[in-house]
Amino acid sequence: MTPPGPAAPPSPRSALARDKLMRTAERLYAERGFANVSVRQISEAAGQRNNSAVQYHFESRDRLIETILSHHTRLVEKHRIVMVEALRERETVSLEEHYGCLILPNVENHIEAGTPTWCARFLAQALVEPALRDYVLQDHLDTPSLRLLDEIGAIRRDGIRPELRARHGTMVRQLSVHAFAELEYDLANGRIDPATAEESWRVLGQDLIKALCGLTTGLLGPR
Amino acid sequence: MTPPGPAAPPSPRSALARDKLMRTAERLYAERGFANVSVRQISEAAGQRNNSAVQYHFESRDRLIETILSHHTRLVEKHRIVMVEALRERETVSLEEHYGCLILPNVENHIEAGTPTWCARFLAQALVEPALRDYVLQDHLDTPSLRLLDEIGAIRRDGIRPELRARHGTMVRQLSVHAFAELEYDLANGRIDPATAEESWRVLGQDLIKALCGLTTGLLGPR
Repeated sequence: MTPPGPAAPPSPRSALARDKLMRTAERLYAERGFANVSVRQISEAAGQRNNSAVQYHFESRDRLIETILSHHTRLVEKHRIVMVEALRERETVSLEEHYGCLILPNVENHIEAGTPTWCARFLAQALVEPALRDYVLQDHLDTPSLRLLDEIGAIRRDGIRPELRARHGTMVRQLSVHAFAELEYDLANGRIDPATAEESWRVLGQDLIKALCGLTTGLLGPR
Repeated sequence: MTPPGPAAPPSPRSALARDKLMRTAERLYAERGFANVSVRQISEAAGQRNNSAVQYHFESRDRLIETILSHHTRLVEKHRIVMVEALRERETVSLEEHYGCLILPNVENHIEAGTPTWCARFLAQALVEPALRDYVLQDHLDTPSLRLLDEIGAIRRDGIRPELRARHGTMVRQLSVHAFAELEYDLANGRIDPATAEESWRVLGQDLIKALCGLTTGLLGPR
């Protein structure tokens, strides 16, 4: 894969423009949906005089979206790799600890970013769009922390047919992504008081871990 | 809510055009994504000479999408109401039976429709699009069979805070919708042999019921 954007390292001014375009795109897509935002609207809302700013800086809408996704993957990875490395030393790892490593880095990322965030609604849309889906799956599955977490192996494998393992992985991913998007949506629309955002993200994290442990035991049987 | 389409009952020819537009829209949206299909492309692909056929027959893109969703809701409801009515006579209802009523009508609907289907990928996209989301939630929550299923009450309620109940409902819906979309996607793209479609839908149904029972017990505690 070629790196996104122009081949030469971007100038500070160009880097700033790229950053502004990424933030603007994420917000507009999250609020209105991929189908209801043009790249021209993104350029305009980001204060770019050139209507083709997205094409210039990112080549295409899909590459812009992929760049935003990678940015968030890196932020979450920073938290997750620390947690997973700590688990590595342990003799046994419980399902709760396994899912803690999956979910809590996202909780921290949302709390650090402050309210409102847009990344969860953005990711949820990317995950269901046919043209972006495979990129999302690859980008999110292929991080060092998730590979390591998989090797640690708290999830039952013996006697589980490969299709069922794959289905389990898909369900875990879908439930997590869409549950984060749901809370983000409720916070953005005032259904949940933004003053309680930090506590709400933490409660969601704990609820999701419980739900995922239950789902796993229900689908794969007790370990 | 006013009924979709022209106020007068449509002529047979008009009804045919509407049906063709709905099928074409569902297929194109499922395959390419809401963001990558214009209403003009739908009109053209449906063989309509008038480029404004979608506006003429449905007023807008959103109303077209809502009409397609309602159509599927009715098809599934037909199966589900029979199953739920049968449960009503029973003294106790297990979680498995409860989720059977939720999931198996969708399994039957996919099998009846033959391969490929598009409705699951279509619904998954509608559920995450900000402008359509509330309509989907309302349309899908407010059917007689689902209200009745809720009254039968196999899901634990005592001592469960209302936010947690709502979150549980959301998780169940998200997991179900996206799991059906995932299998539909795999069948459409040949990752799963279409010759095994019927069996694959049935296995998905059983896996989903197990996953939902586990999720429910994990999140709400044993009943």
